[in-house]
Amino acid sequence: MRIVYHLPLSPFSRKVRLALGEKKLAFELQIENVWQRRDEFLALNPAGQVPVLLDGEMAVSDSTAIFEYLEETYTDPMLIGDTPVVRAEARRLAFWFDLKFFSEVTANILDEKIMKRFHGGGEPDSERIRLGKNNIHYHLEYIGFLTERRNWLAGDNLTCADLAAVAHLSVIDYLGDVPWDEHIEAKSWYVRLKSRPSFQPLLTDRIAGVLPARAYTDLDF
Amino acid sequence: MRIVYHLPLSPFSRKVRLALGEKKLAFELQIENVWQRRDEFLALNPAGQVPVLLDGEMAVSDSTAIFEYLEETYTDPMLIGDTPVVRAEARRLAFWFDLKFFSEVTANILDEKIMKRFHGGGEPDSERIRLGKNNIHYHLEYIGFLTERRNWLAGDNLTCADLAAVAHLSVIDYLGDVPWDEHIEAKSWYVRLKSRPSFQPLLTDRIAGVLPARAYTDLDF
Repeated sequence: MRIVYHLPLSPFSRKVRLALGEKKLAFELQIENVWQRRDEFLALNPAGQVPVLLDGEMAVSDSTAIFEYLEETYTDPMLIGDTPVVRAEARRLAFWFDLKFFSEVTANILDEKIMKRFHGGGEPDSERIRLGKNNIHYHLEYIGFLTERRNWLAGDNLTCADLAAVAHLSVIDYLGDVPWDEHIEAKSWYVRLKSRPSFQPLLTDRIAGVLPARAYTDLDF
Repeated sequence: MRIVYHLPLSPFSRKVRLALGEKKLAFELQIENVWQRRDEFLALNPAGQVPVLLDGEMAVSDSTAIFEYLEETYTDPMLIGDTPVVRAEARRLAFWFDLKFFSEVTANILDEKIMKRFHGGGEPDSERIRLGKNNIHYHLEYIGFLTERRNWLAGDNLTCADLAAVAHLSVIDYLGDVPWDEHIEAKSWYVRLKSRPSFQPLLTDRIAGVLPARAYTDLDF
């Protein structure tokens, strides 16, 4: 059986779960508390991070490496794009969200609201949370800009760009910190993704002691 | 003509230059002072970062996206690997260096020694430099561990793993901060890379006001 080692609010794990869902590949989820640094897990991924995909004998680490592996191994549907131009654009945008959105938004909000709560580090730094909440606006504007011109972020079809973006946003949405009402185009793109079958398992994720925001599971938010 | 927008000490630009060199693809280098945020450059890459590859009509941003583009477009020699197992391992290790080594070593040393000097930010923080110099040891040990078991980092052949690793290390080596003599296996792997034709252009890079360390250009260091 295919296994994904993950954490419920890890955006990188979510990206992989969405890709598997879109390709209709069955898998089991296994929570990996990475801070415990289990020897068996470090043998799979010396970097000690989730996600890791076990696909039969294959162990694949790093969400982008997993994405490329899935695309090469299970080609239907294609999720990176079918022309060099779209593939370059899809990958560029996936890294935009995995690197830039992550460092400017996800990390600021998630570290302070969740990581510190469970793994020490003292009181949440409200300045960092405020920074993350400020930064999110221009990313949502960018999504709006792109989807006014294209069906999905990188072109006609759904790609890793959409899945990376929605993976990050869904985590912030769990915490109730996405100002959807100020970004109608981005919201309508998010609604389309949120209603896809691949997204439904994410809506049942829960972490101990932190309930999701009221609208998180609501398809008509 | 193919153009690479770059900065001389950008490890991500260097990775792309090495890939082009290994694939024997001619290109022109153009320095992009990203902090000037030129409109024409932002139109190519809204993230405002180097490297960007212009290949005819194609503009490709993000070093990993460029790498995948080159691999798909110019297949000889393959630089990601020829089997799923090697491709997963090569990508895992490339991200190890592009994310983990970068944040633990490159960013600490380069930000403090170079970025602050040219772009403000005050005096170099010697604590951060010390941290980067401490962290480099276990990465060099890891390279030694891998190359005792394999010809190159990910297997029998040179891959993106080697090129990512050497791109970062070559920047630190410019500054003279790689403790080669304490890591003989890593050094012998680096010597093999440093003598390849693709590496030679990197040895002539210079930035104003900062001479490279004495051994930087020396093939028998």
